[in-house]
Amino acid sequence: MKAMTYYGEGDIRFEEKPKPQIIDPTDAVVKIVKTTICGTDLGIWKGKNPEITPGRILGHEGVGIVEEVGSGVKNIKKGDKVIISCVSKCCTCDNCKVQLYSHCSNGGGWILGYMIDGTQAEYVRTPFADNSLIPLPSNVNEEIALLLSDALPTAHEIGVQYGDVKPGDTVFIAGAGPVGMSALLTAQLYSPSALIMCDMDENRLKMAKELGATHTINPASGDVTKMVTDIVGKDGVDAAIEAVGIPATWDMCQDIVKPGGHVAVVGVHGKPVDFKLEKLWIKNLTITTGLVNTNTTEMLMKAISTSSVDYTKMLTHHFKFNELEQAYDVFKHAAENGAMKVVLTVD
Amino acid sequence: MKAMTYYGEGDIRFEEKPKPQIIDPTDAVVKIVKTTICGTDLGIWKGKNPEITPGRILGHEGVGIVEEVGSGVKNIKKGDKVIISCVSKCCTCDNCKVQLYSHCSNGGGWILGYMIDGTQAEYVRTPFADNSLIPLPSNVNEEIALLLSDALPTAHEIGVQYGDVKPGDTVFIAGAGPVGMSALLTAQLYSPSALIMCDMDENRLKMAKELGATHTINPASGDVTKMVTDIVGKDGVDAAIEAVGIPATWDMCQDIVKPGGHVAVVGVHGKPVDFKLEKLWIKNLTITTGLVNTNTTEMLMKAISTSSVDYTKMLTHHFKFNELEQAYDVFKHAAENGAMKVVLTVD
Repeated sequence: MKAMTYYGEGDIRFEEKPKPQIIDPTDAVVKIVKTTICGTDLGIWKGKNPEITPGRILGHEGVGIVEEVGSGVKNIKKGDKVIISCVSKCCTCDNCKVQLYSHCSNGGGWILGYMIDGTQAEYVRTPFADNSLIPLPSNVNEEIALLLSDALPTAHEIGVQYGDVKPGDTVFIAGAGPVGMSALLTAQLYSPSALIMCDMDENRLKMAKELGATHTINPASGDVTKMVTDIVGKDGVDAAIEAVGIPATWDMCQDIVKPGGHVAVVGVHGKPVDFKLEKLWIKNLTITTGLVNTNTTEMLMKAISTSSVDYTKMLTHHFKFNELEQAYDVFKHAAENGAMKVVLTVD
Repeated sequence: MKAMTYYGEGDIRFEEKPKPQIIDPTDAVVKIVKTTICGTDLGIWKGKNPEITPGRILGHEGVGIVEEVGSGVKNIKKGDKVIISCVSKCCTCDNCKVQLYSHCSNGGGWILGYMIDGTQAEYVRTPFADNSLIPLPSNVNEEIALLLSDALPTAHEIGVQYGDVKPGDTVFIAGAGPVGMSALLTAQLYSPSALIMCDMDENRLKMAKELGATHTINPASGDVTKMVTDIVGKDGVDAAIEAVGIPATWDMCQDIVKPGGHVAVVGVHGKPVDFKLEKLWIKNLTITTGLVNTNTTEMLMKAISTSSVDYTKMLTHHFKFNELEQAYDVFKHAAENGAMKVVLTVD
């Protein structure tokens, strides 16, 4: 089969690989129908994860058809159409028992396309299949389902839920990439009164407006804190969601949150940041970090099916699976290409 | 009357001041019975709060007898023995309505001994008397009640509750001063399985053991992370409570908290700190900051009255009110003097 394989910094190859086999009785093998590329995959390509073994197949998102299940799999069967969750979970360890699936201590967590071969392939082996594959109802669009592998639950759980977004709240989102945009979409499930999207890219801000942002802000136009307080009042916002992963957007969030408010860090950070405790010790803030647990994937699937917002706008570019290298090139220059999520379809 | 008055950095004077009068109808004037000194008062003395007006009477803790009430005061009456809460609260503004009394926007919050004259005096005017004075039942020791003005609710709300300490949890406390020790005391209300106190001072660590610490750690003896993981296992603690207010203790806390755990910052910080987001973005942490809301003072008063731990050990030094300058000197060198909280009694 063809697969996108990592060999080291700047070296990924779309090449022939053997079809995966069942290893553990709780495994399944899934034939990929649709897959996509995540910002994390670009990070791996750029060399941010030297811990990855050369030869590793990338990708942790996908929709597929179950091809084969191990002898210990009870709920999933051959022929099921499923969402492949980016987080694998044993559901028996201490962390899984408190729904901290991201830190599954029996070899789960984020492993697909990282510690084990991933979904940018024609087939993928998925461990703990009963827990990590989600049957896809016929009324859910396959491409929206692709967003349920990672982007939507990540933004919802680590951004919106950790940020404690409640009806009437004012919400600031730093970064209108796929995760920031997914935070914008899923925040609307809680009826905030203001949803302020901040990004340098005017095209992305335009899309944010179409997807429900009440206000958009471009840091190039002036002081972010002033622009936000002009909208919500001098105290700042109830929740600030950091969806980029750089010090500048962390700073925006710590500067703009009101006393008693929340800063939810969703971005993948590569450097330490400056935490202004000399000003913030007194502000009764809650600051959260985290990797998605995918414990709300089914909840989101139900909510999206009755949403009035057109989630398919997130899926800006479509390719055949064999065009995966071209899709990487488009996604690598996402802003210039007006790309949000790219969809790859296996014939 | 005599009162400890601030005039600027390094300049506080125990001097004659006029007795306070009712200004607003919701005020009371309270005759002080017992008062104490807080680390914050030392900070003011050292010049950390240049925003304070010269001539301000210090102090935000005290137990007293109500001398006079304004025409709008309904529940408190002359002759009541009361705890003076360090936070004044209108109970009508948006922040007060969500129990964020520390950020009362009608002139409440921490104002005593800061924006208005405080409790290191023979009499004090207390705004919003119905909400900010707590009648003291006869079965509660007056000196323990003094701890209920600030130290115990601060440690309980901002340390233990924000740190989400639950039965069976492992808890690390950085700093065995009055607030860290109060966190040690109030954490026990939630039956954690390990209570690890960390301080440079062996006398304080000895007292921590007497007050319920299961383990004590001196950073001078080795690597704090190693000493803690030797006790609780490699993942770290469920809750780390920072009760000093310096970068070194923040670092201990961010280094020692387990995935899914809590860091509760109680210390008053004067500098920014380095937040290791490059390691911690993935750890599903909750980090909190804050000023006490005093919304659990009554809860603590009830809990303490049935506690088997001897809270009076916290009250290490006793002075007559006229010896307030001497008490400041002792408290300024608290570690050398074996001092935790000093009690000043007005004749």
